[in-house]
Amino acid sequence: MAILSELATEVFIPVAAAIGIAFAVVQWVLVSRVKLSPAAAGAGKNGGYGDYLIEEEEGLNDHNVVVKCAEIQNAISEGATSFLFTEYQYVGVFMSIFAVVIFLFLGSVEGFSTKSQPCTYSKDKYCKPALFNALFSTVAFLLGAITSLVSGFLGMKIATYANARTTLEARKGVGKAFITAFRSGAVMGFLLASSGLVVLYIAINVFKLYYGDDWEGLFESITGYGLGGSSMALFGRVGGGIYTKAADVGADLVGKVERNIPEDDPRNPAVIADNVGDNVGDIAGMGSDLFGSYAESSCAALVVASISSFGINHDFTAMCFPLLVSSVGIIVCLITTLFATDFFEIKAVKEIEPALKKQLIISTALMTVGIAIISWLALPARFTIFNFGAQKDVTNWGLFFCVAIGLWAGLIIGFVTEYYTSNAYSPVQDVADSCRTGAATNVIFGLALGYKSVIIPIFAIAVSIYVSFSIAAMYGIAVAALGMLSTIATGLAIDAYGPISDNAGGIAEMAGMSHRIRERTDALDAAGNTTAAIGKGFAIGSAALVSLALFGAFVSRAGVKVVDVLSPKVFIGLMVGAMLPYWFSAMTMKSVGSAALKMVEEVRRQFNTIPGLMEGTGKPDYATCVKISTDASIKEMIPPGALVMLTPLIVGTLFGVETLSGVLAGALVSGVQIAISASNTGGAWDNAKKYIEAGASEHARSLGPKGSDCHKAAVIGDTIGDPLKDTSGPSLNILIKLMAVESLVFAPFFATHGGLLFKYI
Amino acid sequence: MAILSELATEVFIPVAAAIGIAFAVVQWVLVSRVKLSPAAAGAGKNGGYGDYLIEEEEGLNDHNVVVKCAEIQNAISEGATSFLFTEYQYVGVFMSIFAVVIFLFLGSVEGFSTKSQPCTYSKDKYCKPALFNALFSTVAFLLGAITSLVSGFLGMKIATYANARTTLEARKGVGKAFITAFRSGAVMGFLLASSGLVVLYIAINVFKLYYGDDWEGLFESITGYGLGGSSMALFGRVGGGIYTKAADVGADLVGKVERNIPEDDPRNPAVIADNVGDNVGDIAGMGSDLFGSYAESSCAALVVASISSFGINHDFTAMCFPLLVSSVGIIVCLITTLFATDFFEIKAVKEIEPALKKQLIISTALMTVGIAIISWLALPARFTIFNFGAQKDVTNWGLFFCVAIGLWAGLIIGFVTEYYTSNAYSPVQDVADSCRTGAATNVIFGLALGYKSVIIPIFAIAVSIYVSFSIAAMYGIAVAALGMLSTIATGLAIDAYGPISDNAGGIAEMAGMSHRIRERTDALDAAGNTTAAIGKGFAIGSAALVSLALFGAFVSRAGVKVVDVLSPKVFIGLMVGAMLPYWFSAMTMKSVGSAALKMVEEVRRQFNTIPGLMEGTGKPDYATCVKISTDASIKEMIPPGALVMLTPLIVGTLFGVETLSGVLAGALVSGVQIAISASNTGGAWDNAKKYIEAGASEHARSLGPKGSDCHKAAVIGDTIGDPLKDTSGPSLNILIKLMAVESLVFAPFFATHGGLLFKYI
Repeated sequence: MAILSELATEVFIPVAAAIGIAFAVVQWVLVSRVKLSPAAAGAGKNGGYGDYLIEEEEGLNDHNVVVKCAEIQNAISEGATSFLFTEYQYVGVFMSIFAVVIFLFLGSVEGFSTKSQPCTYSKDKYCKPALFNALFSTVAFLLGAITSLVSGFLGMKIATYANARTTLEARKGVGKAFITAFRSGAVMGFLLASSGLVVLYIAINVFKLYYGDDWEGLFESITGYGLGGSSMALFGRVGGGIYTKAADVGADLVGKVERNIPEDDPRNPAVIADNVGDNVGDIAGMGSDLFGSYAESSCAALVVASISSFGINHDFTAMCFPLLVSSVGIIVCLITTLFATDFFEIKAVKEIEPALKKQLIISTALMTVGIAIISWLALPARFTIFNFGAQKDVTNWGLFFCVAIGLWAGLIIGFVTEYYTSNAYSPVQDVADSCRTGAATNVIFGLALGYKSVIIPIFAIAVSIYVSFSIAAMYGIAVAALGMLSTIATGLAIDAYGPISDNAGGIAEMAGMSHRIRERTDALDAAGNTTAAIGKGFAIGSAALVSLALFGAFVSRAGVKVVDVLSPKVFIGLMVGAMLPYWFSAMTMKSVGSAALKMVEEVRRQFNTIPGLMEGTGKPDYATCVKISTDASIKEMIPPGALVMLTPLIVGTLFGVETLSGVLAGALVSGVQIAISASNTGGAWDNAKKYIEAGASEHARSLGPKGSDCHKAAVIGDTIGDPLKDTSGPSLNILIKLMAVESLVFAPFFATHGGLLFKYI
Repeated sequence: MAILSELATEVFIPVAAAIGIAFAVVQWVLVSRVKLSPAAAGAGKNGGYGDYLIEEEEGLNDHNVVVKCAEIQNAISEGATSFLFTEYQYVGVFMSIFAVVIFLFLGSVEGFSTKSQPCTYSKDKYCKPALFNALFSTVAFLLGAITSLVSGFLGMKIATYANARTTLEARKGVGKAFITAFRSGAVMGFLLASSGLVVLYIAINVFKLYYGDDWEGLFESITGYGLGGSSMALFGRVGGGIYTKAADVGADLVGKVERNIPEDDPRNPAVIADNVGDNVGDIAGMGSDLFGSYAESSCAALVVASISSFGINHDFTAMCFPLLVSSVGIIVCLITTLFATDFFEIKAVKEIEPALKKQLIISTALMTVGIAIISWLALPARFTIFNFGAQKDVTNWGLFFCVAIGLWAGLIIGFVTEYYTSNAYSPVQDVADSCRTGAATNVIFGLALGYKSVIIPIFAIAVSIYVSFSIAAMYGIAVAALGMLSTIATGLAIDAYGPISDNAGGIAEMAGMSHRIRERTDALDAAGNTTAAIGKGFAIGSAALVSLALFGAFVSRAGVKVVDVLSPKVFIGLMVGAMLPYWFSAMTMKSVGSAALKMVEEVRRQFNTIPGLMEGTGKPDYATCVKISTDASIKEMIPPGALVMLTPLIVGTLFGVETLSGVLAGALVSGVQIAISASNTGGAWDNAKKYIEAGASEHARSLGPKGSDCHKAAVIGDTIGDPLKDTSGPSLNILIKLMAVESLVFAPFFATHGGLLFKYI
């Protein structure tokens, strides 16, 4: 048995979650010290801070600037809140319907009987009736959806709380601004990691009151939690992604390209919509997405564990290994965060990217030790893992290795992503250089870069899969995914920091603050672009592992012994599955394109009809642009959402579990590639543009300045990359995960009633 | 037994091939009647043609124009010939080395023993020694490579023979020009289909002299023919693709975008290289590619048949069923061609596209009848097909259905491709419309269109696979591929017609002929763009089926019983395989980009340094541009070529046949999607540009004219699409086919010596 007692486990997990939440609150308090009311800001300055402000040097009126920042922040926050509420109304309806579907489909497995049934894996025992599994799955689903929704919403609130504060701090120096943005990111990261953990923990304990010793049923029902989290994430990512990119593309096309006014210029009518978009897309969407990954990998590990020796022997501590890994992750990330906020101080622009990179390295190194300790404490020295019908012997050190390889594969993916998307290295510089011959070569080079950036991550994922599967079958893959996600709090912190800095820059511009402030926030933002790409790399890598683990769990639960490519049922599934990411991307990209067209027309209309708008005497109508983005994203998120949610149901019901297995495998292997390449291509274009704008080297200056032909070509690339990197690319993670977890939840139904078409033809 | 006797089969196949060759010669003679020397042209005119020439109306000097056309044609032809010879030298070295590799690898299977060995499938009989199989495989490989090389070369020769003739005929009317271009395409189509058939037929008969009753060994060796054809095609497609697009992109970027001179303007130094490129890329490359598909699908069918009841019972007529289908195809295509050249006459521009579409429909309808007849004549009423270890009962009507479904799936793919790439329909018009807001939205819409265009073709392929596999296992899939390719002569004719028209337009421009001629050739070319996309659709669809058939044959031959996605060995193969098309595309696109950059710099240099070049008084240095394209393509085709050729060898040797199976399946399901989307995206952009230029509707005129902002945005899209549709997209067909056929040829080696890494770890 494990060294850690059941009681210690029951204490450790909630305590770790509580520490995470407390830490988030502390960070929030620290951020809130930056006052947004002019009097208080003055008081703060006199009351001890005494920092040197750019305004004082340039003789600007501090009072007005602070009031304006507060106003803009309010506008952004209101826009984001109102959009999210609208989105949640639609999603709420969908969730309610889908909850009923889950209940009916799963309830029908045993004909809604309330009698106990023989267990699937231990035929000699009796398990709880399918009807109650259906009920608890539905409850878990709703729980996951609500947690995901709350995570996204809180993230957005924090981000919009922090953006103007970052702007104000930027007056004092780049280091202060960095810490404000980073702390705000940390609030989100820790809140999300902790709440995801604690809700799952409570759900398990509450469900256990009913299930008792029937852990098979208990953890089957718990998988609904992953499904709920991921379905919510889908709508968040797609809706938010369309919103943000419609506004961004629309604002850039007219503002930057046609009217030659800077980004975030307050004269641009789409500027508020653009800034709202950063918060609902990159913050709320990404928060839901990573929460979904986390919930799913935990569920995948738990459901496999429940039919392995952990579950059979009712070893609660070992059962909770996935949750313990996450608990250790919170502690490790807490220490890691201190390195950025307290142990070291950023003094110059060039220190930002290394500081963020160090976060990744430190958290990975510490986490390796943490995993080793928890594997030693929480796992028996030897145990068995369910492996498609047989039990496989595994040691605790073997399992440590599985978690660790996932963790390190994540770091490799992170570094490769950084190499391909940071303008410090030759790939992005080559792309920038190709702008010499215009937008066409820029696009060709950018696409080629994205394709190339797939190679090493895929090898890293493949090696992780091979090693972790060889050691501990599908459980190994699930914990490898958990390993990659174990430092999620840090990952989210550095990820959320990007859009916050982006918004801070926007507010500086809109409030008419000094250009030196804008330069500082731009530097933060450029580093943020790279970290956003790294974050997406993690999200995709972990999604690949999670999906495979879920796929394995689905196959086990559906009673499929072999998924043979040579069987035509499987092969056509594979082929169609590999097509789905293209179908999905076509929908989301076209949506962004159409919404952006509408936005462009509205912005042009305003420039042409509102007198004095270009001169700064007329006031743009921000609200109409916000409405265009809102309406477009709500309307356009339905078809891709339906594609993802309905495919497993239709394929499973009509073609059966074999074809569905093929679809899942096909979507996985094809989707990962498109997701990685789309996100890196977009990131590279964005930073190639920033490289030319910043003009930090001889080469960069030869391509610039802003407004040169090269720069215009770079802007076109950046605009094309927007939907790739922020809408279609990251949504693909969810596509592959969600189809897998949905199949897993519905597996009993498909196994009983599925494959109608082949049955009757 | 079959109704058709062995003797009748032995007569029918060569006779059909001879008819095809004779028909090609007749078409050539008809094309050659258009004289390229001014005196003869005059004589022709007086001697009965009496056609009305545009020159006469416009008072231009006919004599000078004809001489100039002849000169330009010569320059193009010389450039193409010299490039192909250079390419063939390099490829020749590679082929020789690879021939040695084949011999050594396959010879080593039984340790170079010259003793007979027990047959793989009929253990009680003795088959020829592995050493001789190695020798004959090598011979077949060289034969395939040489036939492919000759096919490509002849195609290029015919195309460069016909382009100026098409220009001259365009003076008489669009119908005359169409027939000249189409007849020339037919010369290539029939020569290629017939020579591919006859060489294969002779090889089988010659090999039979040695093999006698050992058909297993005989048809195993014959697969080398497919490998040879496809390896040659790889270098042809990649090398030719890089050549043509480097020149095209380079010429457009400086000429059209920077200098605002028309396409094919003789002042543009890259113009000859661009026209040479059409012939070495689109003509020679495509010819080799389709020949490769044809050879491979025949080989895949033959190798499966040899271990089915056909081979076991030594039923030669039934064995030759794949060749008989192709023979019927030649006759059917011959009749179909007459519909375009003799039965109907094109009188107006708008009749061109329907005429080409009718070719597809007529050939498909006639071929369905042809297949029914030959299935009835050549097949026994009942027979068995090898199906992974067992024999499956099949009827002749079942097999007819397999061939027919492939044929009709090809037609569906053709029509879908037409819908997405012709500017007569809304998808391309939407893309053109998105140019209103600039190049960025154009690119976003174009990419989305390409992704969307994948959906129906994939379903068509999936249904074909499911149905044909259900009826006749892997043999069904192989003959479905053959069905899709059975009208190859017509497919190639309408495909080759495009670049010929494109060149004709270029020659008209360069020879300073009337713009009305250019308008006629442009109309031919626009239809050609769509048919080129359709041709690529066929090539990709058939490649998918062929690869799957080859994959099935490989798996059988390597003794793999199950390719289980749940095995990590297979899954990592699937994942890495799905990545290969991205890696490959990254290489080829980057190559085009870099070569185009060099070309742009050279063209700019010439415009800046050669006095009077823009005014038309200075003469550009065409040769340097030709050299840049040649050098770039030779140098750049090596790495992607090596990637494709070495992957199966490395994976098979180090990781074994299971992982290799995964790689093949992964590359297949992922490569098909990228190939279709890349080729359709490129075709759509090209035609969106042409739609704006032609200004045939109110909507189109609102976007134009040439030189407007919309048009400039459309040109950028067109330029980005060039490498997608003509380099990376079509090369992916070959990637998936070639890896499969190579695995098949090396299967005995991998089965014996493969998987070193897993063996020793």
